[in-house]
Amino acid sequence: MTEAPMTAQAASTATAGDILSRQLTAQAGAFLRALPLAVGEVGARPGSAAAVPASGTADLLRAVRRVGGLLHTFGAVFEQSWAQESRTELRWLLNLLALEPGYVRRSARLLGAVDSLSGTDPEGTGMLAGHAGAPKARALLDRQLTLARTRAHSTVLQELRSARLHALADRMTLLVGEAPLLEAASGRASAVLRPQAAAAFTALSVSAQQLPLHRAATPYGGDGLRRLGAVPAARGAADADSALAADDAPWSRLRILVKRARYALEVCARPSAELDELDAVLARHQEAADAAVTAATAARTPRITPATAYVLGVVHADQRLEVEAARYAFGRRWPELPPSPDGWLELPPAEGRGHSPAPRTA
Amino acid sequence: MTEAPMTAQAASTATAGDILSRQLTAQAGAFLRALPLAVGEVGARPGSAAAVPASGTADLLRAVRRVGGLLHTFGAVFEQSWAQESRTELRWLLNLLALEPGYVRRSARLLGAVDSLSGTDPEGTGMLAGHAGAPKARALLDRQLTLARTRAHSTVLQELRSARLHALADRMTLLVGEAPLLEAASGRASAVLRPQAAAAFTALSVSAQQLPLHRAATPYGGDGLRRLGAVPAARGAADADSALAADDAPWSRLRILVKRARYALEVCARPSAELDELDAVLARHQEAADAAVTAATAARTPRITPATAYVLGVVHADQRLEVEAARYAFGRRWPELPPSPDGWLELPPAEGRGHSPAPRTA
Repeated sequence: MTEAPMTAQAASTATAGDILSRQLTAQAGAFLRALPLAVGEVGARPGSAAAVPASGTADLLRAVRRVGGLLHTFGAVFEQSWAQESRTELRWLLNLLALEPGYVRRSARLLGAVDSLSGTDPEGTGMLAGHAGAPKARALLDRQLTLARTRAHSTVLQELRSARLHALADRMTLLVGEAPLLEAASGRASAVLRPQAAAAFTALSVSAQQLPLHRAATPYGGDGLRRLGAVPAARGAADADSALAADDAPWSRLRILVKRARYALEVCARPSAELDELDAVLARHQEAADAAVTAATAARTPRITPATAYVLGVVHADQRLEVEAARYAFGRRWPELPPSPDGWLELPPAEGRGHSPAPRTA
Repeated sequence: MTEAPMTAQAASTATAGDILSRQLTAQAGAFLRALPLAVGEVGARPGSAAAVPASGTADLLRAVRRVGGLLHTFGAVFEQSWAQESRTELRWLLNLLALEPGYVRRSARLLGAVDSLSGTDPEGTGMLAGHAGAPKARALLDRQLTLARTRAHSTVLQELRSARLHALADRMTLLVGEAPLLEAASGRASAVLRPQAAAAFTALSVSAQQLPLHRAATPYGGDGLRRLGAVPAARGAADADSALAADDAPWSRLRILVKRARYALEVCARPSAELDELDAVLARHQEAADAAVTAATAARTPRITPATAYVLGVVHADQRLEVEAARYAFGRRWPELPPSPDGWLELPPAEGRGHSPAPRTA
C-alpha cells in the first residue's frame, strides 16, 4: 500500500540518490499518514490492547523500522550527523511503540504456557495438570504483566504528546523528497548501493558464524537449561540472569542484522522470503527469552507459596526450551542461505522479478 | 564368562530342548555362583552403594533377567505352571535387587542435574547459576533419596535371608540340566524356537508402532512438557502424576519387550548391538522419568521455601526434557531396525557369524 517498488527499467538508469529518495519518500509518507492514526489508537484504548498492534501503529512501526534501517545500511551517502540523530530518534519511537504490544504478547505467551502446562484435555495433558500452584502462578503473572502494560501505556500516551515526537515528525516531513544526500549519492545505484548492501549481508553472516550454530542445529544438543554459551570471562557470570542475558544477546543482535538485510533487499523490491522466515524465528527466540526472564522475576516475588514458585520454575524451563527450539530452527535454516546478497541484489535486476512489490510484513 | 554360545554346527542338529537346556543350565549356574557373592556384597555395605551394582549382584541380575526372559519367550515348551511361578519369583528378586542401585543412580542423576543447572563454570553456566534455592533443593533431594535407599537396603538385607530366596535357589538348582520341558521341546530347534522368537519381535514391533514415533522423531515435536500422550479416557487424567505415568507406561513396557528380544537372540548367540542400543536409550528414558517424579514429589514436601520449590520445578522440567530427548533418540533409531528377526534369527545360522559370543552387557 505504502510501498513504491522500483521497476527494473527505472533501476537501470537511476542514481543511488534516486533510489534512496524514492524509498525514503514512500516510507516517510507512510510515517506521516500513520502517525495521527497511531496516536488516536493509543488514546482510544486506556485499558485493553491487542497483541498485534492496531493498523495505524503497525504501519508506523513498519515505516520507522525501514527508515532507520536504510539510514544505517546506506549511511555513507547521507549527511552523517543528521542520519545519526534521525536514527536515535527513530529508535526511541520504535522502543516506545513496541513496549505495550510487547507486554500484551508476553502476557499471552506466559498465560498460554501456564494453561497449556496445566491443561487437562486428554489429548494434551500438561505436566502440571491439576497442580494447585498453576492458577496462583497464572494470577501472579497476569497481575504483574497487566501492571507493566498499564505503566507502559501511560508512558506512551505522554510521549506521544511530546515535543520530541513533533520534532521527529518534522524530520520525516523533510525526508519527503528532500533527503540530505551527499555527493556520493549521484553515482550509479549499482556502484554505490551494492557494496553497502553487501556489507549488511557480511555483517549478518559474520555475526551468525560466531554463534554456536553447530550445537544449535543438533536437537537437544544445546542442552539449553544447563550449558549456556560461554560468558565473557570479564563479566564473571556469578548469577544466572547475567549468564542468560549474555547467552541471548548475540541472537538479539543477529535479529537486528537480519532486519537490516531485509530492508536493504526491499530497496530494490526484491523478495526476501528466507530473511522473513529467519526474522520470524528470531522474533520467537526473543519473545521466549523475555518471557523466561519474566517468569524468573515473578518467582522472586516475596511471600508466594512454594507451589506457585514450583510452577514458575517449570514455566521458566519451558520458555528456555522454546528458546532452544528457536535456535534449532535457525541453525537448520541458516546453512541453506547464501552468505552474501549475490543473486539477490542485482542492480539493475537481470530479470523482471524486481517488479513484484515487497511482501507486506512487519 | 558364564555364556555358553551355541556353535553353528551344534545348532544345526540340536532340538529346541537341547538349545534351551544348554542356555538355562548356563544361566542357572551363573545364578547359583553369583548368589552368595551378591548376598555378601549387600551385607558388606551398610551405608554406601555404588550406582553400578558390584560384580556379584550384577552377575545375579544378568542371570535373573535372562532366565525370566527365556521362560517367557519360549514358554510354550515348558511346563506352564512351573514356568509361571518361576517367572514370578525371578521378577520378585529382580525388583528387590534393582531397588537400591536404582536409588543410587537416581540420586547421582538428580544431584548432578542440580549441580549442572546451577553451575557457574563460564563454559557451562546453568540457568540456575548462583540461585539461592539450588543448595537447598540439592540437600532436600539428597536427604530424601538417602532415606529411601537406606530403607531399600534394609528390605534387601532382610529378604536375602528369607525362605523365599532359598526356594528360588532350589528352583535354579533344578534348572541345571533338568528344565521341565514339554514334549514339544523335542522338535528341531529352528521349527520350534523360531516362531516363538518371531513372536517376541512381533510383540516389540506392534508395541513400538503404537507409540507416537513420528512425533518422537521430530526434534522438540513431542512438546514434552505440555502435550503428554493421550491418556485413556477411563482414567480421567485429573492430575499430572497419572497423566505422566500413563504417558511413560508404554515406553517402559517397550523396554521389557526389547530385553526379551535381546535374550531371544542370545539363545542362538547372535549379536544384538541394535537392540542393546535401544535398551540403553530406553533405560535413560526410564531413569529420567523416575527422576522427574522424585523431583515433583520433593516439591510437595511441607514447609520448603519458594526458592527450593522453584529449583525443583526447573529440575522436574529438565528431567522431562531428558525423557523427550530419549524418545527422540529412540524414534530416530527405530525405523532403521528390521521389524522382525529375519536375517537375525536363523537357526541354524547361514554363515559363521553365530560363533561370536553374545556381548557381555546387563
